[in-house]
This record gives sequence, structure tokens and C-alpha cells, in this order.
Amino acid sequence: METIKIAIVGYGNVGKGVHAAINNNPDMELTSIITRNPERTKKDFLGEQAFGINPPVKCIYHMDDADKWKNTADVAILCSGSKNDLFEPDSEKHDSYQIMVPIEIGKKVLEKFGQGPYFAQYFNTVDSFDTHARIPDYFRVMNAYAVRSDHTAITDAGWDPGIFSIERIMADAFLPESKKYTFWGKGVSQGHSDAIRQLNYVQDAIQYTVPLEDAVKQVRNGENPHLSTKDKHWRDCYVVLKKGSDCPEIRKEVELEIQGMPNYFTDYKTKVNFVSQEEMNERKKSMPHAGSVMTSGTTNYGKDAKKAFIEYNCKWDSNPEATGSILVACARACYKFNKSKKFGAYTMADLSPADYSAHSQDKLLKEFM
Amino acid sequence: METIKIAIVGYGNVGKGVHAAINNNPDMELTSIITRNPERTKKDFLGEQAFGINPPVKCIYHMDDADKWKNTADVAILCSGSKNDLFEPDSEKHDSYQIMVPIEIGKKVLEKFGQGPYFAQYFNTVDSFDTHARIPDYFRVMNAYAVRSDHTAITDAGWDPGIFSIERIMADAFLPESKKYTFWGKGVSQGHSDAIRQLNYVQDAIQYTVPLEDAVKQVRNGENPHLSTKDKHWRDCYVVLKKGSDCPEIRKEVELEIQGMPNYFTDYKTKVNFVSQEEMNERKKSMPHAGSVMTSGTTNYGKDAKKAFIEYNCKWDSNPEATGSILVACARACYKFNKSKKFGAYTMADLSPADYSAHSQDKLLKEFM
Repeated sequence: METIKIAIVGYGNVGKGVHAAINNNPDMELTSIITRNPERTKKDFLGEQAFGINPPVKCIYHMDDADKWKNTADVAILCSGSKNDLFEPDSEKHDSYQIMVPIEIGKKVLEKFGQGPYFAQYFNTVDSFDTHARIPDYFRVMNAYAVRSDHTAITDAGWDPGIFSIERIMADAFLPESKKYTFWGKGVSQGHSDAIRQLNYVQDAIQYTVPLEDAVKQVRNGENPHLSTKDKHWRDCYVVLKKGSDCPEIRKEVELEIQGMPNYFTDYKTKVNFVSQEEMNERKKSMPHAGSVMTSGTTNYGKDAKKAFIEYNCKWDSNPEATGSILVACARACYKFNKSKKFGAYTMADLSPADYSAHSQDKLLKEFM
Repeated sequence: METIKIAIVGYGNVGKGVHAAINNNPDMELTSIITRNPERTKKDFLGEQAFGINPPVKCIYHMDDADKWKNTADVAILCSGSKNDLFEPDSEKHDSYQIMVPIEIGKKVLEKFGQGPYFAQYFNTVDSFDTHARIPDYFRVMNAYAVRSDHTAITDAGWDPGIFSIERIMADAFLPESKKYTFWGKGVSQGHSDAIRQLNYVQDAIQYTVPLEDAVKQVRNGENPHLSTKDKHWRDCYVVLKKGSDCPEIRKEVELEIQGMPNYFTDYKTKVNFVSQEEMNERKKSMPHAGSVMTSGTTNYGKDAKKAFIEYNCKWDSNPEATGSILVACARACYKFNKSKKFGAYTMADLSPADYSAHSQDKLLKEFM
């Protein structure tokens, strides 16, 4: 079987999740890994954290060595962070993107625009860019660089944006004017965990976002409530205090400090639990996540209106492997798009179920319809 | 706004559901209705059963009058039954479809192949052909006739086949080797209701298919049980006895007779309830349906395997209006496909979320991702 050759850019949690997913898809082959720190990545491969079969240790490249890696794959899956890596964080430059023409090329693109547009020059790409407010700008720049080099770029893939986005779009098309609700969790929020870790007395922390059961119930009942993010979720925090700080007074102080953090916790029902570093280490081993998209609407109208409700749930014991699994299916779609000369940027909103699938049309018609 | 002009072929429950959905989509316009019995359809329009706005009473045509209706719409939504209408029921002829070349044209196609291929000569079409075993054959014939006339045909649309099929395909791509489970109900099964109505003493009957809660629970728990259709559902029957027959002995006899009907009920847990004709009439006013597709698998593999679970549920107070709503979204996709010269047959497996949507790419990127 001819395989689709994949490069992984960035070998953190999501990169490792992509690696695991490649091994679960026989039509895929990992042919290169491109990182800022090849030595550390090589250790990951040789150490306990290595995933699975055929680790191409020889094919681990430094991000700067474009000459070495540029022809190594059909699709590069970009697993770096959205915040600073994929797209440069300088919001001052945004206006110019409206009329963006890709004048810069090569390494200069990395400096000016970030890894996404940089790699779009050399590869078909799939990424999980997820800074919602910047999605249209990022899409425009990726489109310009992909079109320029006859590449295909699938942007904003994963689960939100990603599978949740497409479920919102489809449910909206089937039920126009319907109300949509997205619930996240139970799952870890890195941003909130980091915020707690900044506090005095705190040695380590992890924060889970959890849907409020009453809100879920109201939505499932078709009550169509108006709910902001804080009306739908509560925050469950686990904290390890620094050595010598664990006493009732400091516990109370830290608890109040967390619950009073503006933007992060003040608006939410927030529970603070104190645990040992050992328990924290256990917790950190698993990175579960779950979520739901619910759409509540009607068919017909006026006095003939009848209730209609669509719900999409998913629950993953490993959040980065979930993202990895979806990105790999998107890489297959990306490869097919490029083969049929669909160049430029696309999102999962532009991909059909068959595009993701390794099965033939005949098999889909017979076994999946 | 330029509208997409829709013809409805067949004005039964699904046809009326499509009509209601057209009125809920401002970019759609109902321009003709094509039926075997225009007089009855006109009465439907003028009577209590008429849906909504702008009923084009002048534009109700007889199926035989192709000259009158053939240029009236951009897309025809075929709302006739799968069993005998859309595709001829003669299984003897199947082999020839393998090498099907559309030699017959015009009215002869109606006689030889049925309404689907017949209308594919004159219109872009959307249909809800749902005889699972015949889907590949039907697809091939529809493709031949659509290609021949530069039309686009979306086949097997609706909810199963349809939205459930695409959720199965996507979940399979994200989680290869996963187990898929489809639950139907609570909803009416026409075939089973009809079977009960054939019995002695029975005046009227309705049968609901209902998922077995224990089976649902096992699947949600990730136990990956092996379940056939009968292990997943039970059957809830409501029966009106003929005048003068309602006594305990006959109730017992009918109950046992239903529970003993081979193919229909013997394998299932079956409950029989006796009700008055008034209660039956009330029940028949609503045609609810619901169902779920569940996918249970893992990310990673071997000792590192981690559980992953995806669930898609929907619940509709009106089954035919649910189907109508989905068919109308497919009509929009069909129209776009034809405009971009994608001729031939497609299923919902080939449509992207954006294809169904009336929103611009810009709006989807900003508000739905």
C-alpha cells in the first residue's frame, strides 16, 4: 500500500498524540519530526515517553534546517502552540493582512508571521490553531502562502475549533434559527492551572472545567435558556502548597485568593481542594477531556412548530491524543485535496466525511450508509 | 436575494415536511409540486393540512406532464417511498446495473427504473432512498442519469441513511477500529404497525421502537458489548380492538399473537397495550422519532491505549419534518455542487458542513469555528 508521508512539527503532547494516531492508521507513515530541540526529542524517542513503532530517530530535524526536511513528507502536521508559535502575536500588524500579498519568502516568513505560514511554503499543512478571535486573519495569511506554493492548508482542526465547529454548522443548517450550546469538560484548563501556580504559597496546581449539571438539564429539556460560559461551567481546583505552608490559615487564604481572581474565577462557582504532590503527579498523568455541542430548535413554525434537538458528545481519556487522532484524519483529507489541486486554506467546515476516510466509496456506500 | 427554486415530488408526510422546511429557509422558494394526484394535493393546500406561506396552488402538476414542470425548479426533492416508487422493485434486473449505460430516456426511464432516475433526467435531485441493501445499485443508476444530463443527484439523504451515516463515517475516521452502535427510537415503525393491523380483531395499531436502557448504558460505559438489533431495542404496541371484541380473552389472544409474529416480534421484548380509538387518534397526530449513533474506541494502542467515546443523538417531535429539514439543507448543497459543475450522484458522505450552510465563509470562520 502506498502511504501518506507525515512530518510532525513540534513534539510536545499533541505531537506525541499525532505520532500515536499515525501508528493506528495503516495508510499513514511518520517520516520526519521537526523541532526546536532535536536532542530532547531524540531522548523522548529513546526514553519511556516514546510512542510505538518505527520511530525515525534519524529523521528528527531542527526547525532551521529547511534544506534537510523540506521534501520529507506529503503533509506536515503543525503541533506547536497557537499563542506564539503558529501565528505571530503582534496584533499591530493585523490591518495589513486584509490586503496581504505574500512578498516575504523563506525564513523571513517565520519571523514575520510565525510557523503556520512558514511551513505552508514547504508542505501541505494541518494545524490546530485555536485562538478563536484570530481565526479569520490566520486563515487569510495561510491561504495566501498555500496558494502561492500549490499547497493545501487545513487550519483550525481538532475539537474546538474542529469537530465541535462542524457539528454547530451542520445543526444550524438543519435547524435554522436554533440555539446552540457548547459545554466543555470535565477537562483540564492549562491557562487556569497556570494562573493558580503564580500565587504565593502554591507549589503546583491543576484546574478542571466542569459543566454545571443544572444547565445541561435545562438545555436538554428544550428550555432554551440564555447561558454565558460562567452559567454553564464550574471550576474544580487541586492545589499543592509549598513545603511548610500547609496549615488551615494559609489554606483559607489561598482558597479566597483563587476564588477572587478576576477574569479567571470570580464569576464562577469555584471549589479548591488541597492535595499532596504525589496525588498531583498521579492527576497529571492523565489528560482527559470531554464536551458537548447541543442544538435546540424547531421544525415547522408558528402554531405548528415542533421541537427538535441534536446533541454531540465526546469524551476522551487523553486530550492530546484526541486532537492527534482528528489531525491525522485531516491530514488524509489534506492529501486528497492537494492531489485534486484544491490549493489554499480550508477548515474542517470544507471537508466531507469521505475526505477523512481511508475507505473506498464502495465500502462507504455498502457498510456505512 | 436570489432564491433556490425547489420542486417537491410527492406530497405525503415527507413532502409536507420539506414544504415546512423551505419556509424556514429564506434562501429557498417552493416553485412547484409534482404528484400523482394533483387534485388531492390542491385540497391539502386549501384545507387544514396546508403549511405556511405562498402555497403555489397554480403550480401543482401531474407527474406525467413533464413538459409543464420540467423547467420550474433548480432542485427537485423526491419525497416518494423507497420501496416501490424511487427505484423499481424488480431485483431480477440488478445484474445489468453493474454495466449500466443510460440507453432509455424520457418516460421509459420511469417504467424501467422508477422515479429517481426518471427525475434525474430533468432536475438536480435530492432523495431519501433508504433501502440499505440496494443503496449501491441505486447510486450507480442515479449517477448514470445525472451525469448524462449535467445534473447533480444527492441520494440517501435524511437521517438513517443520512446524518447517522456521516457521523459513523467521521467517528470511524477519527477512531479507526472502533465499535459503532446505532439506536433507533423512541419512534414509530410503520412496518410493524401495519403488521399488527393485519390481525383478526384488530381495528388499528401503532408500534414504537424503543432502545433498551441497559444496552445504552453498557455502550456508554465503554463495555463494547456485542449487540444485535434485538439486543438494543424493545417494541411497545398500542392496539384498538374492533367493536364488540374488547374482552379479556381476546386481549390475551391478540397479545400472544403479536408477541409470536416471526421476524417482527418473536425476538424482541414486546409489550402490548389496548387503547380506545380516540387515544389512538391522538397518538397518530404526532410522529416523533429519536436515535443515537455511539462510537467506542481508543486512542494510542497496546498498554498505552486510552478510551475514547463519541455520541450523536437527535430527538424530533416530527419525524417527517426532521427528514424534510435535512433534505432542504441537502438541496442547498446540491445546488452549489451543480453550479460548480460537480455532476453525477453523491451522498451526504461527500458533502461538507459548509455545503449545507446558507452562511458565507467569512461568517462561518468568525461565528461558528
